[in-house]
Amino acid sequence: MENNSIAIILWSCPDQKGLVARITQFIFEHGGNILDLDEHVDAQEQRFFLRIAWTTSNTNDGEEELKKKFTPLAQEFHATYNIRFAHHKQKLALFVSQYDHCLQEILWRYEVGEFNAEIGFIISNHTDLESLAQRYHIPYYLFPITKENKHDVEAKEIALLQQQKIDTIVLARYMQVFSPEFISQYQHSVINIHHSFLPAFAGSNPYKQAFERGVKIVGATSHYVTAVLDEGPIIAQDIIRISHKDSLEDLIRKGRDLERLVLARALRLHLQDRVLVHGNKTVVFD
Amino acid sequence: MENNSIAIILWSCPDQKGLVARITQFIFEHGGNILDLDEHVDAQEQRFFLRIAWTTSNTNDGEEELKKKFTPLAQEFHATYNIRFAHHKQKLALFVSQYDHCLQEILWRYEVGEFNAEIGFIISNHTDLESLAQRYHIPYYLFPITKENKHDVEAKEIALLQQQKIDTIVLARYMQVFSPEFISQYQHSVINIHHSFLPAFAGSNPYKQAFERGVKIVGATSHYVTAVLDEGPIIAQDIIRISHKDSLEDLIRKGRDLERLVLARALRLHLQDRVLVHGNKTVVFD
Amino acid sequence: MENNSIAIILWSCPDQKGLVARITQFIFEHGGNILDLDEHVDAQEQRFFLRIAWTTSNTNDGEEELKKKFTPLAQEFHATYNIRFAHHKQKLALFVSQYDHCLQEILWRYEVGEFNAEIGFIISNHTDLESLAQRYHIPYYLFPITKENKHDVEAKEIALLQQQKIDTIVLARYMQVFSPEFISQYQHSVINIHHSFLPAFAGSNPYKQAFERGVKIVGATSHYVTAVLDEGPIIAQDIIRISHKDSLEDLIRKGRDLERLVLARALRLHLQDRVLVHGNKTVVFD
Amino acid sequence: MENNSIAIILWSCPDQKGLVARITQFIFEHGGNILDLDEHVDAQEQRFFLRIAWTTSNTNDGEEELKKKFTPLAQEFHATYNIRFAHHKQKLALFVSQYDHCLQEILWRYEVGEFNAEIGFIISNHTDLESLAQRYHIPYYLFPITKENKHDVEAKEIALLQQQKIDTIVLARYMQVFSPEFISQYQHSVINIHHSFLPAFAGSNPYKQAFERGVKIVGATSHYVTAVLDEGPIIAQDIIRISHKDSLEDLIRKGRDLERLVLARALRLHLQDRVLVHGNKTVVFD
Repeated sequence: MENNSIAIILWSCPDQKGLVARITQFIFEHGGNILDLDEHVDAQEQRFFLRIAWTTSNTNDGEEELKKKFTPLAQEFHATYNIRFAHHKQKLALFVSQYDHCLQEILWRYEVGEFNAEIGFIISNHTDLESLAQRYHIPYYLFPITKENKHDVEAKEIALLQQQKIDTIVLARYMQVFSPEFISQYQHSVINIHHSFLPAFAGSNPYKQAFERGVKIVGATSHYVTAVLDEGPIIAQDIIRISHKDSLEDLIRKGRDLERLVLARALRLHLQDRVLVHGNKTVVFD
Repeated sequence: MENNSIAIILWSCPDQKGLVARITQFIFEHGGNILDLDEHVDAQEQRFFLRIAWTTSNTNDGEEELKKKFTPLAQEFHATYNIRFAHHKQKLALFVSQYDHCLQEILWRYEVGEFNAEIGFIISNHTDLESLAQRYHIPYYLFPITKENKHDVEAKEIALLQQQKIDTIVLARYMQVFSPEFISQYQHSVINIHHSFLPAFAGSNPYKQAFERGVKIVGATSHYVTAVLDEGPIIAQDIIRISHKDSLEDLIRKGRDLERLVLARALRLHLQDRVLVHGNKTVVFD
Repeated sequence: MENNSIAIILWSCPDQKGLVARITQFIFEHGGNILDLDEHVDAQEQRFFLRIAWTTSNTNDGEEELKKKFTPLAQEFHATYNIRFAHHKQKLALFVSQYDHCLQEILWRYEVGEFNAEIGFIISNHTDLESLAQRYHIPYYLFPITKENKHDVEAKEIALLQQQKIDTIVLARYMQVFSPEFISQYQHSVINIHHSFLPAFAGSNPYKQAFERGVKIVGATSHYVTAVLDEGPIIAQDIIRISHKDSLEDLIRKGRDLERLVLARALRLHLQDRVLVHGNKTVVFD
Repeated sequence: MENNSIAIILWSCPDQKGLVARITQFIFEHGGNILDLDEHVDAQEQRFFLRIAWTTSNTNDGEEELKKKFTPLAQEFHATYNIRFAHHKQKLALFVSQYDHCLQEILWRYEVGEFNAEIGFIISNHTDLESLAQRYHIPYYLFPITKENKHDVEAKEIALLQQQKIDTIVLARYMQVFSPEFISQYQHSVINIHHSFLPAFAGSNPYKQAFERGVKIVGATSHYVTAVLDEGPIIAQDIIRISHKDSLEDLIRKGRDLERLVLARALRLHLQDRVLVHGNKTVVFD
């Protein structure tokens, strides 16, 4: 056991004295050697957030055993927590429509090994990106969507997601809005890229909105999808400078670079268990 | 005549063939040597924007004579234009309330000679910054504002502005809103700094709004003031990255650096006649 | 003639009065409508730089005819100049070794239509990227290089470049150094990406150098290749922030994003005839 | 005791198991409540770095008592460490020459309360900035330097620094180089701002070097001063973009904004005990 002996815990609980000491002592007693520790106290909310990565070389515990061992500690502190072994790859489903740049970026990084994940399949409401999926040998499921069939399609999608045990859904410029029922099943597990610096220019055609407002900077925002459109917890944002020389087409072209980098960054942070959600905000241990 | 022999024209008209040739030929015939030329065609609006700086060494014309000479050309092309000699310093009035950082920045840059301007006076609705004004030997007028006296105060302010022939008003974190009547007299001549990345977080307490939304980037926006609050043409914007570690106080502190730099940059661009307004957007030749 | 009626001139000459007027008048007289004009005067060098894009709708001239018409004007002002029609695509050769990220980026942007160019072929001293070339149906020539055969290989490469009438060579992380003889034949036509913020960390292993120096920012630099390694005129640079948390591997990974974006940006500027070289510096009209 | 009950430890030692548990347990046993914890393991050097801020409300220990209590723990782990109470302000000396921008920036932030420090005095080899010092009521000592008197002047400066118990020296564009003997007495306690993106353009006239090289980005670097000029551990760096339009004077002007912000940032990090030095590199817990 080398790489698979690294465990990562994400922990959140009401703040109180002695938390770090207790948790790190617990890890030490179980033979762990801490590689990386990040903690944050939200002074306003009086809440404590923790991420620890450690080597579990002296134990033969599996992920589930380890989780169980932490249960009493977590209960004592009223904590929510999650433990994952670094060798445990999350399983992803990618949702796309017609734009290829975000999909292209994710597949290239996937191939290079930047994501600790396995891509199960791609779902699209269009055929456009099927050949790109084939290049990378990823199954591509076509689900055309109309107002009438939306409910049925979502049911089929959920069936597929569950059957393939998908952990995380990535909306790589997927141009459909999910129902609240769908989202409720994948809380903090659906990552979207919005092509504006939220909360500016929420909704449709953000580049057109930005062009018409005459801003000097445009942005992109990657966030967890919640029931309210474009209002979920923000994971990553970035911007580029523009000027009067830039046409709407230039904004769209320049924005592509931003969208794919911001989405890739958010996905990587998520897959490395570096993102904690509290309320509508995130703690990102990068 | 050395430095004072540099003239700058800002010109805007419907686009048509031969504009640059005609205007530059006109300057050449009047003995000018072009130092710097920027042009922009807004393809969508079919509108032409131009800035030329040239040396007028062979002429004894004053600014008004030069303006008159351009009149027939401007009429022919239905242009709006302005000509200023580089040695003609604009006269500024600064409006402040209680925050000192933007005033401090402008006064320091003023002293160093970064602004081609003369500061006539400072107006404030508070006494806080009077000592700072005294350090730099700038007259400081106190106009406390209440709901009742607002109309009267504005009248006094306008009288003062007119008497001192103020060209440009800088709102250096001035916490009062002008009446539309006031603004109509200083169109594209009142520069404000809003402490957010507009149009995100317009209105009051933008840092609080940003903190609560959990954004990963905050910004500042300098714009010309129009009748509609926070919606005037944007001159300059910039951003800084923040994280979950930043409290509301940290946002305010970090934002100060942003506000003063963005306001100073916008003011410098304005004073160098580098900003053209068309509709609600700017062309900034920087 | 629509798109193909756009002509672009890049012009450089000693500064003197009336240049813009004469050149724009010339274009006007030949029925041109200026779309975009950028000029720059290097006050220290007393040199004038110009780029004009105009529609040549009223003429049936080809590129060569147009060039000839400009000859007397250029001679009068001792100018160097080049004219290209926007529909005239440059022909590119890409040189690669084993890293795929820059090639991947260029091929994707090429497919999307971001480059006004035709990629003739890819040359590599390794087989690694052949399958990527095949995905995009680009011919891939393998030229393994040893100390002994270097001279012969360059001769073969030059023969291939000339036979295919290659205008511009892109070194997309090509790990070989050309001989001065090679470079002299493609002056200001070979674009390289160096994975550091030149002049810091020139030479080999720049990320290792950066890691060991403990810098807080790393960069990438795209430049024209000259006889002196890593000292050619710089076209584009960009940076990313790093911290003590970043291992050498992290620097390499983060640097990949930088390298491909900076190289793509420099190539696009070059292909749009936006780069003028004077001495060892560039004027970039972006 | 409220604010003065916050203690901060900076700790560095060879990495081994159980370090965090032991140290946090120790703090817990002494009644501490951890507010903020940052740790870093340099995997290559097998070295462990830690910063903890905690409230010491249950104890009446002073700083020295607290330091003593940590001694056995530090000896056990072969650690170097420092403890400071948050209410313990460091005492600063500022060294300046003729440029005012960095001094101006530091004094303004000092007045606003951004630095947890007390400025003891300003030393200069010129009279230029005396009036600025007076504005802020800071003692200003003039020590003109010649080749002949350099040794003597340093002796007087050291006497003054020691007499006033100065903790940290800030070189705010001080244009003299200290002798190795001087530096050896203030290891990791002299903070300089170099007006380039080190290691590019070390030495004198970095803006001139940058201008002549034709870079598209210039930077500033704040670092601890060591015996080798411009090669000390880097605390903070930042950059701005430039273009062919920028003259050498523009670089100098734009660089001023960069220098003062980077120096202020480095100083703040240092004063908050967020910087650990190991070899020639820093760990910055920001």
